[in-house]
Amino acid sequence: MSNQKIHIFDTSLRDGEQVPGCKLNTKEKIELAIKLEELGVDVIEAGFPISSPGDFSSVEEISKVIKNATVCGLTRAVKKDIEVAADALKLAKKPRIHTGIGSSDNHIKYKFNTTRENILERAVEAVKYARNFVDDVEFYAEDAGRADIEFLAKLTEAVIGAGATVVNIPDTTGFCLPHQYQAKMEYLINHVSNIDKAILSCHCHNDLGLAVANSIAGAIGGARQIESTINGIGERAGNCSLEEVVMIIKKHPELGFYTDVKSELLNPMSRLISDTMRMPIQANKAVVGSNAFAHSSGIHQDGFLKNSSTYEIINPEEVGAGNTQHIVLTARSGRAALAFRMRGLGHEFTRDEMDELYKQFLEVADSKKEVNDDDLNELAKTFATANA
Amino acid sequence: MSNQKIHIFDTSLRDGEQVPGCKLNTKEKIELAIKLEELGVDVIEAGFPISSPGDFSSVEEISKVIKNATVCGLTRAVKKDIEVAADALKLAKKPRIHTGIGSSDNHIKYKFNTTRENILERAVEAVKYARNFVDDVEFYAEDAGRADIEFLAKLTEAVIGAGATVVNIPDTTGFCLPHQYQAKMEYLINHVSNIDKAILSCHCHNDLGLAVANSIAGAIGGARQIESTINGIGERAGNCSLEEVVMIIKKHPELGFYTDVKSELLNPMSRLISDTMRMPIQANKAVVGSNAFAHSSGIHQDGFLKNSSTYEIINPEEVGAGNTQHIVLTARSGRAALAFRMRGLGHEFTRDEMDELYKQFLEVADSKKEVNDDDLNELAKTFATANA
Repeated sequence: MSNQKIHIFDTSLRDGEQVPGCKLNTKEKIELAIKLEELGVDVIEAGFPISSPGDFSSVEEISKVIKNATVCGLTRAVKKDIEVAADALKLAKKPRIHTGIGSSDNHIKYKFNTTRENILERAVEAVKYARNFVDDVEFYAEDAGRADIEFLAKLTEAVIGAGATVVNIPDTTGFCLPHQYQAKMEYLINHVSNIDKAILSCHCHNDLGLAVANSIAGAIGGARQIESTINGIGERAGNCSLEEVVMIIKKHPELGFYTDVKSELLNPMSRLISDTMRMPIQANKAVVGSNAFAHSSGIHQDGFLKNSSTYEIINPEEVGAGNTQHIVLTARSGRAALAFRMRGLGHEFTRDEMDELYKQFLEVADSKKEVNDDDLNELAKTFATANA
Repeated sequence: MSNQKIHIFDTSLRDGEQVPGCKLNTKEKIELAIKLEELGVDVIEAGFPISSPGDFSSVEEISKVIKNATVCGLTRAVKKDIEVAADALKLAKKPRIHTGIGSSDNHIKYKFNTTRENILERAVEAVKYARNFVDDVEFYAEDAGRADIEFLAKLTEAVIGAGATVVNIPDTTGFCLPHQYQAKMEYLINHVSNIDKAILSCHCHNDLGLAVANSIAGAIGGARQIESTINGIGERAGNCSLEEVVMIIKKHPELGFYTDVKSELLNPMSRLISDTMRMPIQANKAVVGSNAFAHSSGIHQDGFLKNSSTYEIINPEEVGAGNTQHIVLTARSGRAALAFRMRGLGHEFTRDEMDELYKQFLEVADSKKEVNDDDLNELAKTFATANA
């Protein structure tokens, strides 16, 4: 079987932007959308048009400038929402309406105060109505992560029958474990009679730190779209990190998947989102954190200096991280790392000299968090003077 | 079968501290170790004694003050390392030496330039030597994530035969997928004849964002110890997050696991580590981020206000996050959220008034990232004046 494409649906501008305090204006959103298209995502969810005039305008303006990617607008399963979204998307080359409703008994009871039957009707009606405006309609079964699986299958079959091209199975509260999320997808693939007419989508939240693992498990289970955000931004603990999903798929060819994302643009995109939204990226964020490729312990540095593959599975250049591979000198660093950094500064020592110098280095390192170039030059100078 | 205990091994002070620029002094390490014991971790890895005089002293001082937890010191499979670690641990109530060597062909070839047979000999020798000093010896098979599984089983059997009480199967480069890591544990459980004499341990790195998922998968596969750090700190993309592992186990009783960690101390511990190491926690960090329990979109806020379980699987008090559950007002917020926050400030409106007020609110919200109490009071005042 040839490799299967995993469609990358970016929702940085919609679900991602639901971070408290990070609202973007229309101009910022347009700039980010253009960069997301360059990055190679398949779908850009540009906003929730009925939610505010600003959101409407962002979806409308992004629709005008995006050439190849699908532009998507969110709605509830409500006619007015769908009309407004269709209006905002009317100039998009490839418009998609993303409509849906709660599917778990918890949501059906507490949020909608209704019955499964009524939810099914409203879902079908919304999808049919949306298909009057666009050919590409994605349905989200909100809180599918906690929904009864038989009802979820019935709902999926019904909305595909009504014309949905994509069915999104969100783990809205971030509750599922990977094997559970995978099993849901497998159940749907095996029990929904018209499943060949649509693709399933993963939309995972990170409340238990499992959004990325769940999304990959969902794809293994049969989903062919993953919804994610740059840097994993989003409400509460955020969404699935786009950059992690892309690199897992790239580093694990045995999965039989590929994406069209250009991995070398991941770091520039990550920084752009972080700067525009004023959302700092933690230093140890996978793939895009400032420390993602920094080695500081002696054992690791020693191995890394012998052969980088000993402690590195991603070459920083592969993800556009530039020359950030580095050897940080701390009290944990060994002689090999000290010699490497000293050589970089033009200081060469014999093995015996190194033994002595290393002791002096450790004294400095124990009193400091990190030994920098100035410290090293000072050390080398003192050493040369003492041994002159 | 009754619930199985998952031992929580904290390595914030050793692997976690290998974050560039975050070196702790002995006094800080002692304070953190005392708090880690209060938190309820089973093992505290206090340092790598031979690596520097500061590390030696930290392990020695922590050994004196810790009463119930096991105190562990790291070594290479080198006699001198083991002697120094034993010396640093000599006052510990429950000392553990953690020794090991590379197990993947990559490490054997590029780092040690030797053969599998030689690695096996050195591993056995190191474990036997360590057992001369302490009864509790953990062996790490470095880079086990990429090791040949048959060799890994042979190595595991040999070190258990030599007296190892715990065998750590590290995914040193953060390469494995959850189902692959689980399969490794299952293979070892099924193919190592003396496996009943030791427990297997998960030690996962986060280079692809999968450290937590892999650790849980490892436990499902049969491991009974998880090595982790507070806030997931550590070299490169960091380690498995202790707080996420603990909450997954707590929220998924169907796994049949428990830990002795007091979840209500997770947020205070997280802040203490962050403050002491000057490592900010990203706002959307699961369980301990400042936004972990903040709802900002209208759909979510509406559901949350009807019943918190619609969008929340963890009660913030359960993880010591205090009253941080909140309703953040942005352009995505709905009428229910606006009314809720207005009521909190003592402003009551009729439904018709609310319709009008909501339009004015959206204008303010579209121009601001977040609408705060001052903005709301101003809105209410303007509205009252206009309608007086």
